[in-house]
Amino acid sequence: MCVKTEFVSALPKAVALLGGGAIGGGWAARFVLNGVDVRLHDPAAGALDRAQEQVARARRAFRRLTLAPLPREGTLTILDSVAAAVEGVELVQESAPEDLELKQELLATADQVTAPNVLICSSTSSLRPSLLQAKMKHAERLLVAHPFYPVYMLPLVELCAGERTAPAALNRAATIFQALGMHPLVVRKEIDGFIANRLQEALWREALWLVHDDVATVQEVDDAIRYSFGLRRAINGPFRVGGGGAGTRRFMEQWGPTLKWPWTKLTDVPELTETFLNKLARQAEAREDGISSFEREQQRDDCYAAVLRGLRSQGHGAGETLAAWEESLRKRAPQVANDRGPLAAPTVQMPSDWVDYNGHITENRYLSLCGLGSENVLHHVGIDAEYRAKYGSYFTVETHISHLRELHAGDRVQVHTQIISADDKRLHLFYVIVREGEKAPAATGEQMLLHVAAGTGRSGPVQGDVRERVMKLALLHAELPRPERAGASIRLR
Amino acid sequence: MCVKTEFVSALPKAVALLGGGAIGGGWAARFVLNGVDVRLHDPAAGALDRAQEQVARARRAFRRLTLAPLPREGTLTILDSVAAAVEGVELVQESAPEDLELKQELLATADQVTAPNVLICSSTSSLRPSLLQAKMKHAERLLVAHPFYPVYMLPLVELCAGERTAPAALNRAATIFQALGMHPLVVRKEIDGFIANRLQEALWREALWLVHDDVATVQEVDDAIRYSFGLRRAINGPFRVGGGGAGTRRFMEQWGPTLKWPWTKLTDVPELTETFLNKLARQAEAREDGISSFEREQQRDDCYAAVLRGLRSQGHGAGETLAAWEESLRKRAPQVANDRGPLAAPTVQMPSDWVDYNGHITENRYLSLCGLGSENVLHHVGIDAEYRAKYGSYFTVETHISHLRELHAGDRVQVHTQIISADDKRLHLFYVIVREGEKAPAATGEQMLLHVAAGTGRSGPVQGDVRERVMKLALLHAELPRPERAGASIRLR
Repeated sequence: MCVKTEFVSALPKAVALLGGGAIGGGWAARFVLNGVDVRLHDPAAGALDRAQEQVARARRAFRRLTLAPLPREGTLTILDSVAAAVEGVELVQESAPEDLELKQELLATADQVTAPNVLICSSTSSLRPSLLQAKMKHAERLLVAHPFYPVYMLPLVELCAGERTAPAALNRAATIFQALGMHPLVVRKEIDGFIANRLQEALWREALWLVHDDVATVQEVDDAIRYSFGLRRAINGPFRVGGGGAGTRRFMEQWGPTLKWPWTKLTDVPELTETFLNKLARQAEAREDGISSFEREQQRDDCYAAVLRGLRSQGHGAGETLAAWEESLRKRAPQVANDRGPLAAPTVQMPSDWVDYNGHITENRYLSLCGLGSENVLHHVGIDAEYRAKYGSYFTVETHISHLRELHAGDRVQVHTQIISADDKRLHLFYVIVREGEKAPAATGEQMLLHVAAGTGRSGPVQGDVRERVMKLALLHAELPRPERAGASIRLR
Repeated sequence: MCVKTEFVSALPKAVALLGGGAIGGGWAARFVLNGVDVRLHDPAAGALDRAQEQVARARRAFRRLTLAPLPREGTLTILDSVAAAVEGVELVQESAPEDLELKQELLATADQVTAPNVLICSSTSSLRPSLLQAKMKHAERLLVAHPFYPVYMLPLVELCAGERTAPAALNRAATIFQALGMHPLVVRKEIDGFIANRLQEALWREALWLVHDDVATVQEVDDAIRYSFGLRRAINGPFRVGGGGAGTRRFMEQWGPTLKWPWTKLTDVPELTETFLNKLARQAEAREDGISSFEREQQRDDCYAAVLRGLRSQGHGAGETLAAWEESLRKRAPQVANDRGPLAAPTVQMPSDWVDYNGHITENRYLSLCGLGSENVLHHVGIDAEYRAKYGSYFTVETHISHLRELHAGDRVQVHTQIISADDKRLHLFYVIVREGEKAPAATGEQMLLHVAAGTGRSGPVQGDVRERVMKLALLHAELPRPERAGASIRLR
């Protein structure tokens, strides 16, 4: 089940994380980068450093994942007890080692020291919530919220209620995780391992046998997957075959019996002997090509960002989740009130699919940045979906750009836009594109926009309140100094 | 194993396809769009129409997949016998139904009517090549070349030799499939089902049980995968965990034992009863939202194109395969000899990640098209990797674009470039961007390029032969009429 919710300021101000390992640290990164304060409790030495490392990696990845204005980051604080960690929080997320007794004790402690209206979620990847509730008094607020590594990058979170969980708790959790840019999937039946890990581990068992029996190396298993059905799995599951419906049925009738053919015997698990474990480690090592584990994690994050942005361009699956999150970020971005100077758009970061092979932003993206400047002006004068449908909007007819210096993936950039002149139909804009922390612009741009009347495909005058606001803003900007490069043309001087 | 080969005009002029169903038709599409003539034999009625449908779908998809110049398409002819189909071909690809006896007979026939130096490949997804060789005389040229649906989109082809296969045949096949833009993976041991399908079917069995037991619906299985580890599988296989090497070993020691936990009992196959098949069909139907099967196939192709282009931007996996294929297409593209008029670049098509939510090419992509025009000029005057390393190259410092009409995904477009003027360091270019079949330009562009000396980051004069060619071309273009919009500036008139 998927719970549809509104992004109604669902984000808590602060959360407590119990456990800061690979999963807990990933939660820290996702919360902090969404502007939520994180209070972390982890008895292990160096837990704060490790969590901060994940926050840094996620910061880098988010800057390549989205152009949307990222909020001011939350704080990350380490606390030396559960009681201290839960102070003032709305959600407790437990990510302790996968040990039932340990988790039961930890959750019982959290239950005792936390007001009953605070949600408590467990990141367990296999244990049933009813078992986790065993020692809790207010078990109605406990549910499983199982994320996937890296937590800041993969959108799925499986929500599973136990026997004593209140439905309202499940809904509240879904709302929070959705506001974090995740896709909450409610598991209908309480089962060990939930859904995604069962599927993932089936594939894993088969892969282990292939390597164990020397049918394929680790690299060949990688390749067999990522060059074939692995590409499908980013798009959909295994049943989207034969065209759906009756086609799926025909496909199953034809190919279903092959599932029972001889190779199904390979469904047990090979013994993880020393020899086999060493072979796995050696083959996984052989592929490393002198790349550090840190660089590899970055490369993987960049691939996630590129695949997610690809799916976003099609409005499909995880790309749809990304688009919804970006929309919520744009709504949350503080309005920059600056009617006296050029209009400043929210700071954006350069995503990973904007770069060329040198890691520079491709030159056409300077034009995209001008586009962000115009969007900001149009938003400011009140052009919204309703105005567009009723009266039309502005379209670019001419562009002039001076490319002054290079920008790189992840750079944070602000676009300042000045109205040079405006009449009934036309809007002449000038853009100054500045990298965060610098004074000299990375580029300047200039565009002529033409107002096109809704449904006609032809120019027509701007209407009503929007017209008034355009003229008022143009008058204010007329008092600003005219940019030196405005009206320039290209020539050999 | 992966056989590394050069793209040394490896493509055959013509191939014979035996069988034109979902797989054979996909082969037809991949060959035809790579410029290879296809001679198809299929006894079923309507086989040509169905193959042509796949060619049309692939044509649309390729135009969204790549900017590289696609070659002149090969022809698709239907022949009424095996003997007629194999006439003059270098490769026979068999894609008959998955029935051992039928395939043995068909391959024996092909063997008899084909010269012994012609390669014969079978698309079988499960049968061992040694069994397929049983009735062949020249069995040394038979191997399995198992592709994945849709064949024109997914790059993997598993190559598997039988007991009597000659190693040279395997290498030759690898070279051909690589030149088609595929990734040939040589299967080390002859086993039923090869590698990818074993992995895929393991996941499938688990998915069947989840739906059978009402733990999840078809849609929920889809979501559990595509929002989590499905995104990983487009990037790599299941062993790239814990950072590789020793990390993979630690990960396996920690999580390996969970593979034996209770849920491993779900490794048999549920009975495909009427009731279960109907449930599957119904759930697959429920997701269709009034979209026709044809549109759904297009949407899926567009998603593949977007994911592949995302991976290409990172130079990773299937994106690397795509980039290598594009490079070979660029090399194959006929040079346009037109020193007398503006330089025409090879026709390119608008890829799926260049569009906005309206299906129009985003305005910044007009600047990308100017970039293609400059690249064409720089290539023409002899700027190559060697010149770049030794002397430097040109960089854009100023751009002016007139956006005249909208372009859409898949549109074919040509860029004509004229040198307006040139001096020691500067190159002033004018572009006319025209959609195939139209006279009025979709846009015009103008750029000033500056020659930057290698390693300095500062401007420096163009050198040697390149300088001579630039000056000679500039002199020729000086005789052309100066474009009306050259040197224009943006202003309210």
